[in-house]
Parts: sequence; structure tokens; C-alpha cells
Amino acid sequence: MSAIRHALSVKRADDFAQWYQAVVSQADMAEESGVRGCMVIKPWGYGIWERIQRLMDDRIKAAGVQNCYFPLFIPLSYFAKEAEHVEGFAKEMAVVTHHRLVAGDKGGLVPDPEAKLEEPLVVRPTSETVIGAAMARWVQSWRDLPMLTNQWANVVRWEMRTRMFLRTSEFLWQEGHTAHEDRDGAMEETLRALEMYRSFSEDVLAMPVVAGEKPENERFPGAEATYSIEAMMQDGKALQAGTSHYLGTSFAEAAGIQYQDREGGQRHAHTTSWGVSTRLIGGVIMTHGDDDGLRVPPAIAPFQVVILPMLRDDAGDEALIAYCRELHTQIAGQTALGEPVRVLLDTKPGKAAAKRWDWVRKGAPVILEIGGRDMENGKVSQLRRDRLWNDAAKPDFSAPSREECVAGIAGLLQDIQQNLFQEARDRRDANITRGIDTLDALTDFFAEGKVFPGWVEVQWSRPTGEALDKVVEQLKALKLTIRNVPMDATAADGTCIFTGAPAVERIFVARAY
Amino acid sequence: MSAIRHALSVKRADDFAQWYQAVVSQADMAEESGVRGCMVIKPWGYGIWERIQRLMDDRIKAAGVQNCYFPLFIPLSYFAKEAEHVEGFAKEMAVVTHHRLVAGDKGGLVPDPEAKLEEPLVVRPTSETVIGAAMARWVQSWRDLPMLTNQWANVVRWEMRTRMFLRTSEFLWQEGHTAHEDRDGAMEETLRALEMYRSFSEDVLAMPVVAGEKPENERFPGAEATYSIEAMMQDGKALQAGTSHYLGTSFAEAAGIQYQDREGGQRHAHTTSWGVSTRLIGGVIMTHGDDDGLRVPPAIAPFQVVILPMLRDDAGDEALIAYCRELHTQIAGQTALGEPVRVLLDTKPGKAAAKRWDWVRKGAPVILEIGGRDMENGKVSQLRRDRLWNDAAKPDFSAPSREECVAGIAGLLQDIQQNLFQEARDRRDANITRGIDTLDALTDFFAEGKVFPGWVEVQWSRPTGEALDKVVEQLKALKLTIRNVPMDATAADGTCIFTGAPAVERIFVARAY
Repeated sequence: MSAIRHALSVKRADDFAQWYQAVVSQADMAEESGVRGCMVIKPWGYGIWERIQRLMDDRIKAAGVQNCYFPLFIPLSYFAKEAEHVEGFAKEMAVVTHHRLVAGDKGGLVPDPEAKLEEPLVVRPTSETVIGAAMARWVQSWRDLPMLTNQWANVVRWEMRTRMFLRTSEFLWQEGHTAHEDRDGAMEETLRALEMYRSFSEDVLAMPVVAGEKPENERFPGAEATYSIEAMMQDGKALQAGTSHYLGTSFAEAAGIQYQDREGGQRHAHTTSWGVSTRLIGGVIMTHGDDDGLRVPPAIAPFQVVILPMLRDDAGDEALIAYCRELHTQIAGQTALGEPVRVLLDTKPGKAAAKRWDWVRKGAPVILEIGGRDMENGKVSQLRRDRLWNDAAKPDFSAPSREECVAGIAGLLQDIQQNLFQEARDRRDANITRGIDTLDALTDFFAEGKVFPGWVEVQWSRPTGEALDKVVEQLKALKLTIRNVPMDATAADGTCIFTGAPAVERIFVARAY
Repeated sequence: MSAIRHALSVKRADDFAQWYQAVVSQADMAEESGVRGCMVIKPWGYGIWERIQRLMDDRIKAAGVQNCYFPLFIPLSYFAKEAEHVEGFAKEMAVVTHHRLVAGDKGGLVPDPEAKLEEPLVVRPTSETVIGAAMARWVQSWRDLPMLTNQWANVVRWEMRTRMFLRTSEFLWQEGHTAHEDRDGAMEETLRALEMYRSFSEDVLAMPVVAGEKPENERFPGAEATYSIEAMMQDGKALQAGTSHYLGTSFAEAAGIQYQDREGGQRHAHTTSWGVSTRLIGGVIMTHGDDDGLRVPPAIAPFQVVILPMLRDDAGDEALIAYCRELHTQIAGQTALGEPVRVLLDTKPGKAAAKRWDWVRKGAPVILEIGGRDMENGKVSQLRRDRLWNDAAKPDFSAPSREECVAGIAGLLQDIQQNLFQEARDRRDANITRGIDTLDALTDFFAEGKVFPGWVEVQWSRPTGEALDKVVEQLKALKLTIRNVPMDATAADGTCIFTGAPAVERIFVARAY
């Protein structure tokens, strides 16, 4: 085994933003497409998304939500019906105005002036309006409620500054949309989705999050309440990783989702929406990546185990490959984290050290290198990606027998999954500061020039309207935002650091993506 | 069990096109969205698509093809690089010209003239050009070939006349795109994909198809050869259900997909593309539907078995539901067609006969009705959807014991799958006419006023260019098109019915969707 220590072109501590781009590129996750703000998601990145889709979809279906598919294009008039909503999205919408190209005067093709649409179509930035129009047709009586739908789709928001996975003009997501008889039912669903996201992030992505309500100024355009899960990245910044909205009756009123209630009267439904996107992959990278690249939690790794035969281009290769095939079959027959183990036998040409490095930077959880001597001794050189180095220049291989390796693979993957979570949670917890009780102290804290200041939990009086605007301005001067009001915070017992009034709850403030 | 025979609003023999729309609507598959040419795919229709996706994706992955995701938007200049290609699609492309809305002079919102794109973006009608641009970055050496990619995506073609599932402005599909060292490798892949589609259609959709090459005039814009699978609908018309294209080097030249060959020279790759879409669902409806609605082949049924407890809103219901739950668990533990049986216990309120009819028209393969007496006798009233009626006014229930039902469910589903295929193949074969050897005879045949004339196999000399144009015109006068040159046809042994020259192959001519 080669002792050469490969490395990414940049380390986290040197330039976290550059490091992020390096991982995206060197772990072969995605790349710029040449189309402004849009990325190409490559097989390893897309494979992770497929895993996220499959496991999230299982949870969505288990909650009784049914998948549908709604149009990509939304007539402008649909949008205009909900004033706050259209206001919130108008500045970043891709607009289709023509349905044909024609030869232009100066050569080349141009949109055909004869084929101008009567009403422009917006490429969906989110689908409340078009799904609301469908629900208005589907919902007649309280017996039709709750109506629980979801779609997996691409959406477009014309962002000015884009960053792969975190903020792209086009992204992939799921959007749940539900309608209920009353506020209680809708709020229950809003919080069910929030809890689904929390447990998914922690149990599947091994990414600890704080679930809570966003402040008024951060609500989804048109929502009455917005909840989020917030994850701490390794630079101490917060990433909003999923949101769930209670929409009241405003979208139902705009779309006409009315039903006959149990007493025979007509009422508007209460609706919700909730979504997570390919942004989660950015969260996984910034939660689990290290200076050698990505570390993919086993639950979402396209391949959990990669077998690398150390081929020598000689007559011995055939027996070695046969040995590895057998190992592949044995491992594929194991069950880990509730599913058959996903294992790849990589026999592509290339030097052993280079091939290992490819899988290290991609973050395959377990790498098994098998050389001629391993085969002779019935052994396996086993590397767990979460503990690649043991403060040594050589990768920290263990050398179980083949039988031990096969029998232990499920436990090993489970252990890596837990270990990644534990590591991320410990780091998150270590970077939360409590007990700052004045704005001056908060200013000092973030002025200290800390590279990774993390999050601060403060108490506040939940100001609204202009008073809240003032707080937002004060925080903005410190490059801070309010992340959310954690669901599980201890009760407030002090004064608001902004207003001096008695505090009513605790909030997290942090720098954020 | 009620003897009332429900029925669709229209029968196949009365008006096939109306019947099709009735099934789409009454089997709750899809509906008009209010957005021109775009449909909403409802849970039962989308559930069938999810099954198609899952099973097709397994086959795509098994062939070593890797899923990626490419941008929705394609810069106009990318398209313009391949002249035939852009010519083929220019008339039906949705064009994005602005990225922001602003308040208009007359109130309301309009595309912001300040936010006009420098270069219009086309909403992808297909992705050869944007994937070609990525492959040009990815392919350097012959070692990178073959490069095998696929994406599941939505595409937009601005069709003038739309029909749900068969031809919609937006549709869902998979598009495989591959690059190879030479013609042989690319042609092998083209035909591999074609064979994958043939076997998928027959084994999974129970839809018999003819795989073959399309004539020159029906080639994909820019392709050197286009192959298709063609299925016969119950009105005798052909449906092109999937295509696979050998693209030669023209797209590689346009995008710059070049590689260093084994001798050190620079060469252009040979590329392919292949796709199937939500159109397959239209094919399933028109292959398997009957006058009671849809019959879904078990392999793609979202639920293969539906258990309907005959509830009476009295104290006995609790025991009945408990009995049905147990049955549900037992059936869910069975394996049919290689997967766990998908079974639903439907306890929604409603009359038994109405609920049964819902599942009959949706086409659930097996319906199990359980009343109090069934429970007492340890029996199950079992209905197979492919044999709903036995020339009687009452549905043809069988009455196995619960144990027999559970033990027999896998075999039953397998049998229904085969039976649907057999029935469709027999009908297809009965509606193919051979031995017509003059254009006059062909004209007579289709002039007979037959409702379902089916397909005719004729021999021809494979004319090209203007000679082919003339043939196409002659057929058009009969409302006929050339479907394809079947891969497995017997050798030609006569003269061309169009030119009188010695025939070189056999082709199918038919009316088509």
C-alpha cells in the first residue's frame, strides 16, 4: 500500500469556500454546465440524490401522502392571485414568452414574433398556485380532506449569485402540498413534515439539525408560519436545510379551495407546503467533508463498499479477480441499515494508489484493497473512510480475515453512520454559545475575529413589524441572521437582548448560507 | 355483492378516442391542468409511472449506464450547432426571454424589459446538445469510452394538438446518451437499448411490440438511423412507444466530443440517444383497457391487490377490519414477479359496490371483498380484473379459503400478467395482414371501411430521397405511415409494391398515433 498522502488542492481551515468547490469538483459531484447558474449533477452526486429521494419518498408515502405531477409552467395570472407570494418571487422568475423560433434578419434563430404567447408562462419557482388550482377542482367536501400530495420536480429561481448545490438557478426538490379542514389539522401536518425532515437529516444524512420556527421576516411569501431545520456547517455558519409552511387560508382563498363542512356550510381549506432540495447535498458536504474530500454517510452512499483488486497486469490477475468476485457476492448478500449492502467491484485499469484516492475523495464509506498476499492469507485490507488516518502518513488499514470482513460489514457501516453523526453533533454542540445577554456582548462575540464563531442562543421578546425590522438591521450590521426559535429550547427566563423587555423565547442567531 | 353493472360513459367500439379520454379521467389517471397542453398526473397515473421508472431504471443501471442530471435550459447557440436538429425542433420550442417580472403600465405584472436575456434559452425538447457539451469536457481518451449516461427529466415540445399521455407539451421521460469509439460500438448500444425497450414493453407492460428501423423520412432530426418499438392499440393503430438513435459523428462534431484514439490520433466519438416517456402509459391504456376502464398489468400496478371490507357501520366492523388487517399482512409477506406484493386495505367510507367499481375502473389486478359471512367461513371473495365478467351480469368472483388465497396470490398475479400479454399478442397477430402485393390492393384494403384495419406488412425496395417522398405521399393519401422495418421479418422474396423493383425488406404500414 502506497504511503503517498494525496490531498485536496485546498484545506478547510485555509479557505472554506474554496475547499467546498474543490470537494464538489474533486469528488466528482457536479460541475458548471455552461448555462448560467445551472449545474450538471454527475453520477456520484446524482447517486447520492437518488438515495435521498428513495429514502425520503418512503417516509412521505408512509405518511399517506400521494405523489402527483403538476405542470412546469404556471400562467402569470395564477401567480398574481396571491399578492405577497408573487411579490416574493417576481424578481427571480424565468419567463417563457414565445413558443417557436424563426430565422432572424441577421441570420441565426430568434423567438418568432408571430408565436408570442398571449399570457407569459412562468417556469415554476414553487407550485402552490398551480397545485392550489388543482385542489380547488378536487376538494368538494370535508370528506375529501385532508388532501395530501407531493411532487418530485425541478424548479427555477433566477438567483444572482449561485453556488453548486447550495443556490442554483435550477434545482431538484420535493414539494409537499396539503389541504385540511382547519388550522389544527394543517398545523399538525406542518409540524409532522418538520419532524420528518429533522429525523431524516439526523438518521439518514447523519446531519444534526435544529428544528424551529422562523421569525416573521423570514417567512415564505404568503405563509402564516414558516418552520425550518437548520444545520451547522464546519465553518460555523447555518444552512437552512428544509422548510415547512403553514399557509393559513390565503392560498386557498386565492385558488378557491372551498369545501362543504360537516355542518353543510362552505369554508376555505387551510393549506401547508414543505420541501427539501438538492441543497441537502451541499449540507452533507459541509457537514462531513474533510481535507481529503467527501465522507458520505453509508445510508446515502451509492456504493457503501468498494473492492479494489490490486491488479498487476499479469497472469495472477485472473485468480485475484475471481477471489474479489466471490467477496463481492458475499458482501452483496449482507443487510446493513435495513437494506442489501451496496458494493462495487472496481476493476477499471489504473494504479492502485490512484484508484484508492479516487474513492477516498468521493467518500465511499469502506474501501477493501485486495492484493495477491491478502488472497493467499485469506485476508482483506480494510479502510474505513471516517478514520482514514491515524495520525500517520499511512492510511489506517485493518486486516480482518475475509470471513470477519463479511460478517462485520453491517456493523461497520452502522458504526460509520453513527460515528459521522456523533462527530457532527459534538462539533455543533461545542460551537453553540449560550449566556450572551446584551447586544454589546453579542457584538463583541462576533467581533473577536473568530474564524468559526458558530451560533449564539439569545433570548428575545419576539418583536414584530417595525421593531423586528430594527432587530434585523442590527443583526445585519454584524452579518448575522435569526435562524429559528428551536422547538425544544428551555423556557425564557431573562430579558430580550434587543428590546430589554421580558424575553418570551430563545432564538439562534448566526451567519448563514 | 351487488349485481349492478357499472360501465364507463362510452364503449371502445362506439368511439375509441372518447373511450380513451373516459378511461384517463374515470380511472383517475390525469386531467387537464388549465395550462395549455400540460396535464396533471394524478396519484394512480403517477404511481404507474413510478413503477415504470423503477423497473426501467433497474435495467438501465444493469447495463452500466449512469444517471446524471443536466440543465433544463439550453442556450440557443447550442442548438444551432447541429443544423438538421435545430430545424427539426425550432417550430415547437418554448423560449425563455426574461428573468424577472415588473409592474406593467396597465397594472399587473409583465416581463421586465430591463431583465431581457442576452441569449434566449430554450426549454429542452431533448438534451443531445447540452449533454454533448458535457461529454466534450468529459471525454479525452479512448479509455473514457464508452461513456454511458441517462437522465430522468421533463421535456417540452410545443405541440399544436395534444392528448393526455400521448402528446403533451410537457412530458416526463428518460433519455439515454452514450458516446463510443466507433460505429460498431455505438450501433451495438443503439440496438441494446432497442432490445431493452422491447423486452420491457412485453415483459413488464405486457404490451407486445415490433422492434425495427424507421424509414429515412421518420428519423430523429440529425440521426443516421432511428429504431423504434411499435405497439398495436385496440383500434388497430400503431403507437411508437420508444426510440433509439444512432447519431453517427454529427452531434460529436457539433459539440466537439473528441478523443485520442488507441493510435494517438484525434477522432470524433460516435454517439447514440434513446428514450421512452409517459407516452407508455397511453399505450398501456389502449392495449389493456376494456369497457369497464383500465386493466393494469400487475408488474406496474401501484397496488396489485385491493382488500375491500364490506363495512356496515355497526359493531361487527371492528372484527372484520381486524380480519382484513391480518389478511393484508399475510399477502404483503408474499413475493410475486420478483417483488413483495403491493396490497392496499381500503377502509375509506362508502358503499361496497361503489368502492369496488372505483377499483375496477382503475384496474387493480385483484380485488378481495370480505364480508361478515366470508370472515365466518374463513373465505375470501376474489375477483381478477382481467376476467371481471363471465358473460354474466354478476362479477365473476371465486371463493377460495383465506389460506388458498394467500398461497395462490403470487401465481394469480403472474397468471394475470401473462394473460394480459397473451390476449394483446393474439389480438395484434390477428390484426396483421400479409400478402398484399400491389398498391391497388393496399388501397382497397384500407378503403374497405374497416373500423380496425390493423397493420399491413408489405415488401419494398427501400427507396430513398425523392422516391421515398413519393411513397410517403402515396401512403399519406391513405392516412397511412411506414412504422418500421421489423428486425425479425423473414427475407423479402417479391417486388416493391411502390416501385415494382425487387423488394429488399418487409415493412409495416399502418395508421398511427
